[in-house]
Amino acid sequence: MAAPSSPGILTITCPDRPGIVAAVAELIAGLGVNIVHADQHTDRATSTFLQRLELDGTDDWPTVEVAMRRLAADWGMAFALHVPTAPARTVVLVSAQPHCAADLMMRIGLGELPAEVVGVIGDRPEGASLAAMHDVPWTHLPAADDPEGEHLRLAAELERLTPDLVVLARYMRVLPEPIVDRWWTRMINIHHSFLPAFVGARPYHRAHDRGVKLIGATAHYVTADLDAGPIIAQDVERVSHRDEVADLVRIGRDVERRVLADAVRLHLEHRVLVFGNRTVVFD
Amino acid sequence: MAAPSSPGILTITCPDRPGIVAAVAELIAGLGVNIVHADQHTDRATSTFLQRLELDGTDDWPTVEVAMRRLAADWGMAFALHVPTAPARTVVLVSAQPHCAADLMMRIGLGELPAEVVGVIGDRPEGASLAAMHDVPWTHLPAADDPEGEHLRLAAELERLTPDLVVLARYMRVLPEPIVDRWWTRMINIHHSFLPAFVGARPYHRAHDRGVKLIGATAHYVTADLDAGPIIAQDVERVSHRDEVADLVRIGRDVERRVLADAVRLHLEHRVLVFGNRTVVFD
Amino acid sequence: MAAPSSPGILTITCPDRPGIVAAVAELIAGLGVNIVHADQHTDRATSTFLQRLELDGTDDWPTVEVAMRRLAADWGMAFALHVPTAPARTVVLVSAQPHCAADLMMRIGLGELPAEVVGVIGDRPEGASLAAMHDVPWTHLPAADDPEGEHLRLAAELERLTPDLVVLARYMRVLPEPIVDRWWTRMINIHHSFLPAFVGARPYHRAHDRGVKLIGATAHYVTADLDAGPIIAQDVERVSHRDEVADLVRIGRDVERRVLADAVRLHLEHRVLVFGNRTVVFD
Amino acid sequence: MAAPSSPGILTITCPDRPGIVAAVAELIAGLGVNIVHADQHTDRATSTFLQRLELDGTDDWPTVEVAMRRLAADWGMAFALHVPTAPARTVVLVSAQPHCAADLMMRIGLGELPAEVVGVIGDRPEGASLAAMHDVPWTHLPAADDPEGEHLRLAAELERLTPDLVVLARYMRVLPEPIVDRWWTRMINIHHSFLPAFVGARPYHRAHDRGVKLIGATAHYVTADLDAGPIIAQDVERVSHRDEVADLVRIGRDVERRVLADAVRLHLEHRVLVFGNRTVVFD
Repeated sequence: MAAPSSPGILTITCPDRPGIVAAVAELIAGLGVNIVHADQHTDRATSTFLQRLELDGTDDWPTVEVAMRRLAADWGMAFALHVPTAPARTVVLVSAQPHCAADLMMRIGLGELPAEVVGVIGDRPEGASLAAMHDVPWTHLPAADDPEGEHLRLAAELERLTPDLVVLARYMRVLPEPIVDRWWTRMINIHHSFLPAFVGARPYHRAHDRGVKLIGATAHYVTADLDAGPIIAQDVERVSHRDEVADLVRIGRDVERRVLADAVRLHLEHRVLVFGNRTVVFD
Repeated sequence: MAAPSSPGILTITCPDRPGIVAAVAELIAGLGVNIVHADQHTDRATSTFLQRLELDGTDDWPTVEVAMRRLAADWGMAFALHVPTAPARTVVLVSAQPHCAADLMMRIGLGELPAEVVGVIGDRPEGASLAAMHDVPWTHLPAADDPEGEHLRLAAELERLTPDLVVLARYMRVLPEPIVDRWWTRMINIHHSFLPAFVGARPYHRAHDRGVKLIGATAHYVTADLDAGPIIAQDVERVSHRDEVADLVRIGRDVERRVLADAVRLHLEHRVLVFGNRTVVFD
Repeated sequence: MAAPSSPGILTITCPDRPGIVAAVAELIAGLGVNIVHADQHTDRATSTFLQRLELDGTDDWPTVEVAMRRLAADWGMAFALHVPTAPARTVVLVSAQPHCAADLMMRIGLGELPAEVVGVIGDRPEGASLAAMHDVPWTHLPAADDPEGEHLRLAAELERLTPDLVVLARYMRVLPEPIVDRWWTRMINIHHSFLPAFVGARPYHRAHDRGVKLIGATAHYVTADLDAGPIIAQDVERVSHRDEVADLVRIGRDVERRVLADAVRLHLEHRVLVFGNRTVVFD
Repeated sequence: MAAPSSPGILTITCPDRPGIVAAVAELIAGLGVNIVHADQHTDRATSTFLQRLELDGTDDWPTVEVAMRRLAADWGMAFALHVPTAPARTVVLVSAQPHCAADLMMRIGLGELPAEVVGVIGDRPEGASLAAMHDVPWTHLPAADDPEGEHLRLAAELERLTPDLVVLARYMRVLPEPIVDRWWTRMINIHHSFLPAFVGARPYHRAHDRGVKLIGATAHYVTADLDAGPIIAQDVERVSHRDEVADLVRIGRDVERRVLADAVRLHLEHRVLVFGNRTVVFD
């Protein structure tokens, strides 16, 4: 999927109608722009058409934008044109277990993800050294007796950092609806189970009690309804009777890290279209 | 794991105590019998010791049995000695979807499993042609207005067939406690989800609605509590937004077949020890 | 991917040029035909464009064919229009180990693949009972002292059966170039290793000697160059030191079966486009 | 597998003889030591017995060592007793691509592996910032015109650092036999292919040319024969026609990282016994 240079990414969602592929393709071709890669999907139940196009052959993205706006009006489309820009401003939230945050920041440091971490926020002190190691501003927002104050401080800190993406990297505080709504489809959480199995707390303990033979992790966009947001990525790993809870935690860590990194990459490459409570992932 | 000739299999469960491994090993060595392969596990929470030994170098299994009986009395052991015998008498229960039964019977026909199918029972007519193809007696026990009568007829038919193993191969009738108890740890069911996700009916529809990225299947010993028995084997397969419910069904079929075949093989090789509501699988 | 009714499948290969997606989409829309699903790929190294479209909304496929022929001439396209037809006439070749053939025929019997087995051919007698069980004509063509005669008899038998697809289901005879060329991209082989590891004979023995931790299988179109044809599907399974050669054979069997079944399904759904010595698999 | 406190690990290799399990178990029991966990394997081809025991209930390891020495003499055993000690002194060698080293050092920093990195050595300058970030001494040993001098400098640097383990983390220089022999079974390399496929240089390019559907990585002990040492761990990831070489490199990176981290963990927990050119991995 690697392109020689950064292409523009056009994503489209609209009611399915005959001729829609032709209309978009014609418009793009008429502007002298190339479609380098195209993915599309039609959801039959709701007759919804979703498309992702990689475009190149132009630097005049405003002209593409204007033309698309006209087409979108005619066809009832929602669209987004993502042009090559600076790395995504990313805020990472952590609690006592920084392994997911550490992995993400290592990858960003190695240039593997088109992102820049502009702040690490933690309710616990454990994230401080990680932030220092990567030379990123650290904000400690400990759990407070007044939840409302705690939420307001977090909301303000997020506003101040103007992130493109917020990552809950094993952040163990429940967020209130206003924050969740504010960052809808720009806030990704990693849950340490193969959802919907073991929704809620202590999934590894419950997986051990149930004697499952696989454990997993789920990355999803955050909604007010806990652990119920649209799923972006999931994976599992094989376990056995030899694995005690501490082993499930260790094995699970690796699954969490790679599922979260995968979800962040897919999101940043504009491969994830949310659709109802589900996602279309053009990978 | 393949042995040149069929070994005897000794499985042991008892409270963990120092010296137990030595005591068993000494006894076996003292009889001039070889331990070809050994697996053991200690559950720390309950201090339970579980062991599986493959033995050869003797044909005098009664002597081993007698010696073990004495040792078991001293140490508070439950043990079982499985000596090379005829293939396991197996009864297969099916409903409208015979793909799991077909796969199992194909494998048995090819000599891949140490079993012999002595009867196919179905509440629907679909299993008849499968039974005929494999030249196995077929019994049609349709769902009845009197559930009690239905259950009694099934219980009687199972008794008549004297199975070593009963396989519910996508059999969609709920069994009453007396039948379940009668065949405890000798009755295996395949559930078409990665339990405990999607317990109950129509798991593929619910997986589709939830937008999961993996679907799975679970083979477990049957208990009166539906879909809650000790898990023997599980596996998953990757799916995407492109997969509609019919695709999940198709993909799921393959997972079901291989998880069920795996569970049956593990059971017949005496690799599964039930322990509380969990299993130790020495694979 | 399941459609409510069988769609027509249009596959296209041509030099990549701007406007090609628009040209095809316009043509299809102009005929009042819907594009239900579309996949496309551009190979950058050779500037080749490959596309697969699922079409519905018409029964007048000859009109689509004629229109496409004109477009193909203008753009230098190779195309194929596959319209809903009878199941693919399939010939299965086997040797001494019928497990892959048995699995494939079980699936076809269950209606899982849009195929009909019109003949089973074997160099060894082992396939006869399988053919009988499925009520399919069996031809025994044993290895002969005159290889030329042997090849001529096989070539004639294949011609007589007029297959759409020939499956080498662990068929252990090397085929001569004329037969391979005659059935190019319509003859699929399953090789019992993860190619290109362990090209040639006795791959499980060599995998055991090398101490690999995974074993695999590869389904590919057959070329005159042994084990070197375009790969359609591959998969692997985890193994360990506990697994002797006989275990690798047993575990490998399952990988072989599912890789072959997958490759046959992808082929029959016209999802595989051959391109140089590689495939594009629109799955 | 997690134990409440660090156990001692006893590994044994010897010719297989009846009574050996009993002899070891008796000896251990006689010392009042508990066998917390035991794994054993008999290689039939060479009649070799291999065992790994986790022991606790004592702090007097010298007594265990002495007793074992006597038993070993009687039975022709090679054995090793690993008692809880300081973290393993680990030296990491890198070239231009530090992603494997970065992952390993992140894990060690998080306390996930019982190791301490005492030095990073690189032939290229890229490893310097990684070493600095983790506050570990960095040695730059660039490729030299006199290979002999280059090898002597590396050999001396390794001696100076007195490592328990040397990790070649995508280190792209070939090492001479004396260095390889000096660190035999204490030097682990990660190769960026599923060996024995794509032995040698540029495996991702060759995987792309061959059109494989899975790519992999292999961690092995280093031998003088390149890419031929005993395999410790392997894994693969699915790829498709959409993935160009740059994508294979990106996907491969993740496989390399997790296979290497797994191999290092297995080694440090004394779970890997080398046996001929193969390994027994008690995981």
